[in-house]
Amino acid sequence: MQADRFFSPDPAQKTIAQALYDAIKALPIISPHGHVDPRLFVEDTYDWGSPVDLLIIPDHYVFRMLYSQGIKLEDLGIPRLDGTPVERDHRKIWQTFADHFYLFRGTPTGIWLRHEFEEVFGITEKLTSDNAQAIYDTIDQKLQSPEYTPRKLYERFNIETLCTTDYATSSLEYHQQIRDSGWDGDIRPTFRPDGIVQVNRPDWRDNINKLSDLTGIDIVDYKTYIRAIETRRDQFRALGAVATDHDVSSREFYRWSNEGMERIFANALQNSSNLDSQETIFIAHTYMELARMSAEDGMVMQLHIGSHRNHNQPLFDKFGRDVGADIPSGNQLLTLKSNFLLNEYGNDPNFRLIVFTLDESTYSRELAPLAGHYPAMLLGPPWWFHDSLNGMRRYFDRVMETAGIYNTAGFNDDTRAFPSIPARHDVWRRASADWLAGLVIRSIIDEDDAHAMAYDLAYNLAKRAYRL
Amino acid sequence: MQADRFFSPDPAQKTIAQALYDAIKALPIISPHGHVDPRLFVEDTYDWGSPVDLLIIPDHYVFRMLYSQGIKLEDLGIPRLDGTPVERDHRKIWQTFADHFYLFRGTPTGIWLRHEFEEVFGITEKLTSDNAQAIYDTIDQKLQSPEYTPRKLYERFNIETLCTTDYATSSLEYHQQIRDSGWDGDIRPTFRPDGIVQVNRPDWRDNINKLSDLTGIDIVDYKTYIRAIETRRDQFRALGAVATDHDVSSREFYRWSNEGMERIFANALQNSSNLDSQETIFIAHTYMELARMSAEDGMVMQLHIGSHRNHNQPLFDKFGRDVGADIPSGNQLLTLKSNFLLNEYGNDPNFRLIVFTLDESTYSRELAPLAGHYPAMLLGPPWWFHDSLNGMRRYFDRVMETAGIYNTAGFNDDTRAFPSIPARHDVWRRASADWLAGLVIRSIIDEDDAHAMAYDLAYNLAKRAYRL
Amino acid sequence: MQADRFFSPDPAQKTIAQALYDAIKALPIISPHGHVDPRLFVEDTYDWGSPVDLLIIPDHYVFRMLYSQGIKLEDLGIPRLDGTPVERDHRKIWQTFADHFYLFRGTPTGIWLRHEFEEVFGITEKLTSDNAQAIYDTIDQKLQSPEYTPRKLYERFNIETLCTTDYATSSLEYHQQIRDSGWDGDIRPTFRPDGIVQVNRPDWRDNINKLSDLTGIDIVDYKTYIRAIETRRDQFRALGAVATDHDVSSREFYRWSNEGMERIFANALQNSSNLDSQETIFIAHTYMELARMSAEDGMVMQLHIGSHRNHNQPLFDKFGRDVGADIPSGNQLLTLKSNFLLNEYGNDPNFRLIVFTLDESTYSRELAPLAGHYPAMLLGPPWWFHDSLNGMRRYFDRVMETAGIYNTAGFNDDTRAFPSIPARHDVWRRASADWLAGLVIRSIIDEDDAHAMAYDLAYNLAKRAYRL
Repeated sequence: MQADRFFSPDPAQKTIAQALYDAIKALPIISPHGHVDPRLFVEDTYDWGSPVDLLIIPDHYVFRMLYSQGIKLEDLGIPRLDGTPVERDHRKIWQTFADHFYLFRGTPTGIWLRHEFEEVFGITEKLTSDNAQAIYDTIDQKLQSPEYTPRKLYERFNIETLCTTDYATSSLEYHQQIRDSGWDGDIRPTFRPDGIVQVNRPDWRDNINKLSDLTGIDIVDYKTYIRAIETRRDQFRALGAVATDHDVSSREFYRWSNEGMERIFANALQNSSNLDSQETIFIAHTYMELARMSAEDGMVMQLHIGSHRNHNQPLFDKFGRDVGADIPSGNQLLTLKSNFLLNEYGNDPNFRLIVFTLDESTYSRELAPLAGHYPAMLLGPPWWFHDSLNGMRRYFDRVMETAGIYNTAGFNDDTRAFPSIPARHDVWRRASADWLAGLVIRSIIDEDDAHAMAYDLAYNLAKRAYRL
Repeated sequence: MQADRFFSPDPAQKTIAQALYDAIKALPIISPHGHVDPRLFVEDTYDWGSPVDLLIIPDHYVFRMLYSQGIKLEDLGIPRLDGTPVERDHRKIWQTFADHFYLFRGTPTGIWLRHEFEEVFGITEKLTSDNAQAIYDTIDQKLQSPEYTPRKLYERFNIETLCTTDYATSSLEYHQQIRDSGWDGDIRPTFRPDGIVQVNRPDWRDNINKLSDLTGIDIVDYKTYIRAIETRRDQFRALGAVATDHDVSSREFYRWSNEGMERIFANALQNSSNLDSQETIFIAHTYMELARMSAEDGMVMQLHIGSHRNHNQPLFDKFGRDVGADIPSGNQLLTLKSNFLLNEYGNDPNFRLIVFTLDESTYSRELAPLAGHYPAMLLGPPWWFHDSLNGMRRYFDRVMETAGIYNTAGFNDDTRAFPSIPARHDVWRRASADWLAGLVIRSIIDEDDAHAMAYDLAYNLAKRAYRL
Repeated sequence: MQADRFFSPDPAQKTIAQALYDAIKALPIISPHGHVDPRLFVEDTYDWGSPVDLLIIPDHYVFRMLYSQGIKLEDLGIPRLDGTPVERDHRKIWQTFADHFYLFRGTPTGIWLRHEFEEVFGITEKLTSDNAQAIYDTIDQKLQSPEYTPRKLYERFNIETLCTTDYATSSLEYHQQIRDSGWDGDIRPTFRPDGIVQVNRPDWRDNINKLSDLTGIDIVDYKTYIRAIETRRDQFRALGAVATDHDVSSREFYRWSNEGMERIFANALQNSSNLDSQETIFIAHTYMELARMSAEDGMVMQLHIGSHRNHNQPLFDKFGRDVGADIPSGNQLLTLKSNFLLNEYGNDPNFRLIVFTLDESTYSRELAPLAGHYPAMLLGPPWWFHDSLNGMRRYFDRVMETAGIYNTAGFNDDTRAFPSIPARHDVWRRASADWLAGLVIRSIIDEDDAHAMAYDLAYNLAKRAYRL
């Protein structure tokens, strides 16, 4: 990989970008939001399985691209819900992957994989049909060596803090075990209450029961439900949690009457799948309560808005969630729909709201103006389909003039692929350096400001945003 | 015209772009979607009329710009529906055009015209008020020379395949005559059934009658209607058709009951203009049937989504369709509305769907994620207002990271202006080369990949997408 | 400030940009739309107050950014509606501003302030915590010198025409006094009838009474209401007004029956806050009448579309309007909703409509195609959050290929901060020169065209658009 990769070609700009990048490239990684499995860090050792177990089966960025070109998920070893056997020959799966590696030309997945191959596994050749098995061997051997345990990689990656994402009903046992183990890595849970808030989910009633068990609070009405959530948040905070996270699809936030909420809750306890329009009210009001809790207990509230989950029903029926079929949808009307929430809590200095979007048309139109006004609100980094070089460029382009960088939350990698974390932060740091160099070369900012901003974007903003 | 036109100014990037472009510039042209009149190719000769007949009257890109600055369509020779005489002095019209040629500064029409003037007619001067008549003479003379027949130009343009767009009720006589003539140009019809699907159109009933006549099927109910469509598709395929094309405004796709469809169809046969909400149901269900047919007969289904046709009613009343007053409209909700269609056919390896949009905000938000997931779906090239240098740059920027180039359909020129075809493909090839050079110079891809991708973008993807 | 600031880094492009800019930088300023207070120009002298009175308290671009980072508006001296005392120590406020000046890194406000400091006040140091008081002193002294009166600055800024924005119920006394004073600056009012059109506003009834008084027309029904508006427009025109301006939130334009309008008007006179859906009808029809008036009296109709005013209710209750809490909202459906208006007046050569948007996704999708077709319509320059270097680049990118520059209205600064006017026009002129240089270096236009276009963008288009 070239030392000046991803920088703009103009030699003068590139020199500035390189200097900015060199000053921040070795900063510790703050990873305040992501989906790494905490089990990785419970013990000194960990069994990664094969290269396919590491790089293909858990990574829907990878296998959805192969699927889009007609390769069956079964042939990539993705497990079926009904237990029908799928391909188990990982060398064959790896060969298929290598044969189609050209599909990733010019994509962020291509960039991350190259980075992982070279920086994590020392492989500098491009993956081809011919060298596929040899590269498989190299990765396979390294995965079994003592330098490649998650804890060792955590240290080698220079991670300062890593936050996972955990259901409200998660036992948090692995987080407890990590703390008990005496290892000094900073792994923190994040409170994700979708399963107890999205009242229409088939598992809602079960989740309420679990919440009762975990908190010792008998949930009999909306009042006890709210108290149980508060208690559960305390339990998360006791294990280091600094934030909550919410997959927001309804995008409505408003308050209902106490009596009304009690009535809906009573109905939901009877049959939560039959609430009709009450569901929207339930969620809208409960988000207001969650915001109130954040204003009180200081946990940062993250809203991830705009994913249409499980768009491909036949695939969902066979393989379940997270198979690359979550598709963004537009028409967010954030300005309108955030009105009640921001009016009630947006001016509160103890409340912090970080908003992520999949609708880039709202960057300059709604999100940057909102974040550039409300003290409580920060704008999260480019998310998911947009955490790429172009996505970052569009984000810098459309957000920063109105919000300034100081109303943004720095970077987070949002990944479940642990070994891709350095690659993702490196892309952000390079993109930041290049953007700032563009401002310097156009005399919009001076080099002193650029250095301060590069440090903030790479490290400080994320730490400050999440109160770490 | 400069040999390095349209490339980025950085010398290193430009060198790469030029090398990529030089390798693809002479590739044959695949034109799988457009609106060229098949009559051009029926015989060895053709009467083009005057330069105004060739370049102004049929080209709403040209005359709508003049209209927007207050020049009446009558003064440009555009025929009125009611037969009121319009300007017939083509030299005078040409002078008006030349006097206002500055309006096209920086526009794609300006670029295409310059290319046509220079490459097709050998005119290297910029059109001005002063040289207008001389340039008129030059074009006029060439149009009458034997080297300027459509067939000769087809060969000179190095076109490999040219697909026209034909109503379902078109007789296809010209296509038949071309085939019968023994000329070896590859001209193919495309099946466009809007007139028999959009049940609210005033001419729907007539079109159904024509469809009956053409297929020999007595259309008495929805079942025979569907059978007639299937038969008509077979007839198109017999003349080389590989695709269907649909002007989609309702954007709804779902299934209704057989009984319900029969009821609506019976009503429509009585009075199709009085269907109210049944119209949407009729179209939504019929699109599902058209998708089923494509999955069965292998014809590629093209959806052109988002044009508000004939926005200017007073102009429509005077001049009819295609006068530059088709305006894109937004709010497509594609993710939501494509759900049923893609759930039923999106995973079918025999189905191929190519989607075109006029709403660029859906590129990164909806279309690239959908095309990057569903095996059946490809994303069409930038369409209409966006088939320009900037439009292509935005397309590469927003689509390719998520979809990869291999979930796109290459280029099509979508033009009714036959002599502008090489200009349009040249812009695409240059834009592609420049985009790829930008990836190479930033070390995102290597030069080998860039050359392979340039070839695919210029030639191979279109051929593969349309199963040519 | 560097002489080549804001230009692209490529040396060849920069040379062209510099030449284009040098040719237009000293052109007179046409400011056809803005919010400067006409009182500034009534006499030869004017008391600016302190640097905080000049640069912070009236500029919501500045104080909303400080507010977004937790600084209270009270601490910035912003007056409260209820008279509660706020910070009055302007040196302390200035120090707070300087301590947080880093928030403006990379923002247009940062660019404008630097320009004002250097070009207007001769301050070349960057504002810091350390030099804050010294810079305060410098500005304070200059403000009291005879070279810094508004009239002197108007001349020094080389302003040719400056249009203010005035309520329909404004007395226009300052405009009258300017005319009477014999000073030869060209200050013109603009007719802004929101307060008499937006029938749901609490002050609507009072405004109707004022309109009666100002026109001498007893407004007893819709007919007399319309006549009074026509008369009031005449009065504005008598003082030089060339345009009207409308804050459009409903975005509906259609006609209702005369009887229906009379009925609604009668209801409104009784209780305008209780009109429910009639409000939308009232506004939609009245906009059609305002368009008719423009077609008759020749006043240019400006529509500013898409601001959700006073989004932050608690702040509005304390501080009132214009405190940085006006947030854009999307989903404009302009193509659909403009249909009646453009069908009735869009083809009328005497009607001129200039449309401004806060939803950039409509640039290429709706506004450029509409402006590129309808003779009456021009597209206004990038507005508000988008009147920045990036916003201008996006505008050039997405608008110009379809509309051409000749269907745009040139630049306007839209500011209430009089000393920032040269800074804003300079940014536009530099951005224009850089964009054009990019077209030249890519051989899209030649240098002759570029020079003509630079002149048009900087000066001529605005003058022509507003019929000055």
